[in-house]
Amino acid sequence: MKKIIITIIGLGHIGGSLASSLKKTYGDKISLIGIDQKPSTIKIAKQSNFFLEVSTLKKSNNIIDSRIVFVATGIHDMAKIFSDLARISFNNRIIVSDVGSIKVDIFKQALKILPKHYDFVGGHPIAGTEKIGFKNLVTDLFKDKPVFISGIRAKKDSVKLIKEIWNRLGGHVYLVSPEQHDKIFAHLSHLPHVLAFGLKNISNKSLTRQEISKYGGTSYKDYSRISMSSEQLWSEIFLSNRKNLAKGIKNFRRYLDKVERLLMTSSKEELKKLLKS
Amino acid sequence: MKKIIITIIGLGHIGGSLASSLKKTYGDKISLIGIDQKPSTIKIAKQSNFFLEVSTLKKSNNIIDSRIVFVATGIHDMAKIFSDLARISFNNRIIVSDVGSIKVDIFKQALKILPKHYDFVGGHPIAGTEKIGFKNLVTDLFKDKPVFISGIRAKKDSVKLIKEIWNRLGGHVYLVSPEQHDKIFAHLSHLPHVLAFGLKNISNKSLTRQEISKYGGTSYKDYSRISMSSEQLWSEIFLSNRKNLAKGIKNFRRYLDKVERLLMTSSKEELKKLLKS
Repeated sequence: MKKIIITIIGLGHIGGSLASSLKKTYGDKISLIGIDQKPSTIKIAKQSNFFLEVSTLKKSNNIIDSRIVFVATGIHDMAKIFSDLARISFNNRIIVSDVGSIKVDIFKQALKILPKHYDFVGGHPIAGTEKIGFKNLVTDLFKDKPVFISGIRAKKDSVKLIKEIWNRLGGHVYLVSPEQHDKIFAHLSHLPHVLAFGLKNISNKSLTRQEISKYGGTSYKDYSRISMSSEQLWSEIFLSNRKNLAKGIKNFRRYLDKVERLLMTSSKEELKKLLKS
Repeated sequence: MKKIIITIIGLGHIGGSLASSLKKTYGDKISLIGIDQKPSTIKIAKQSNFFLEVSTLKKSNNIIDSRIVFVATGIHDMAKIFSDLARISFNNRIIVSDVGSIKVDIFKQALKILPKHYDFVGGHPIAGTEKIGFKNLVTDLFKDKPVFISGIRAKKDSVKLIKEIWNRLGGHVYLVSPEQHDKIFAHLSHLPHVLAFGLKNISNKSLTRQEISKYGGTSYKDYSRISMSSEQLWSEIFLSNRKNLAKGIKNFRRYLDKVERLLMTSSKEELKKLLKS
């Protein structure tokens, strides 16, 4: 049987972890092609020995033989990547998938840009951390993590294959619509990141660096870890999911107003009730 | 040499952990008296064998021989406890200390209520978690944790003794004024808790229980852990530190306004800058 060739575009923390996890799980049954723009990333990806070829998108010799292309770049680069992919004459019916944190925008771009004979299966493993870069890749990163399949224009077999891969990597696969996905993650991920960045922001203004690093307890450290995330990545996510996020922020502002009022009126029982709800 | 008798009033998570840590560190050099109001707590504290006596404040036979009384109750019970302590004729010059999360209010109450010949040394180990109750005590809870000594009306020797105890339990002891303490922890602890409670609050309204439990990633789980904290305890802390906290909330609201405006105007570079600051 011929080896399945899988291409990963964007060899950051998620792309790198995906490569490593795929290699560990499928071994010689697959060949991986790694694509990145940065020479330094290409260099360390080559040293990993996960890949048959590591190259830029333009210079890759083997990408035309891919069965699947995972796009693991920043969200704002995806439209450009889709355009580049649209120009390649793949030797197989190609499946394009992604790992982006928002789904409505990406699916829209995919429908608009990718040729009809390409299968598209949107994906989002809930596995990001504050870490970035190929050098911080984690084998088994997706073990026991939720993985969303969201935004599909593909043959059933292609969807099945993508689902099977995430399952084999240990993920728990869920299918939801892009709209539902983006609403859920506005609350479970994007708003929490807005809050963590904000706390850092305000503490940095009100306290000295020494006070923060010396005296922060467990909860502050959790926030601090979250706010170490890449502002490049998160500003793109926030903007791509702006409507849902703005709604969350509006609700949050309303909650803060309530807390403030209850503080000022010393309403202990009502405050307790609010905290419990 | 006579054993030092140390009383702990309030056998919750912190009081229990303090008892266990003191026993482990000082062994037979100290005797502990445990005081609580709840019969069920008294019962399990007795079974722990940390204590010479476990009882209510009124019924304790041995408390008059204490060298130190640590008050580890909720903040709003402290004034009442101080009044009760003021009526006891201790056989030694007594040191009253506490472990409360705010210091201005507690110090004020101590100065007002405790007789002049009592030494008062306010304290705050930064060691709380979402856990509550004696049954969840953690030996070595204070190891490598910051411990604040804040709000002092005492002889030098008494301050030295309290400092020494926290040092022996592994804490890093810092002396700051109650005002400075409350300002610092409005940002490093109280505001983070307001935010975590708020996120839970809003998610519970916008998403199903199943969506939250199934799909939450690492960051949401951190928030979720923090928001499992006792609303009784935290509403008291928030109210006791209302001025500093209200200031923090005001700043936070201003930050959210800025985020919302940048989302609506698609100002990616400015948003990135804000997240980074």
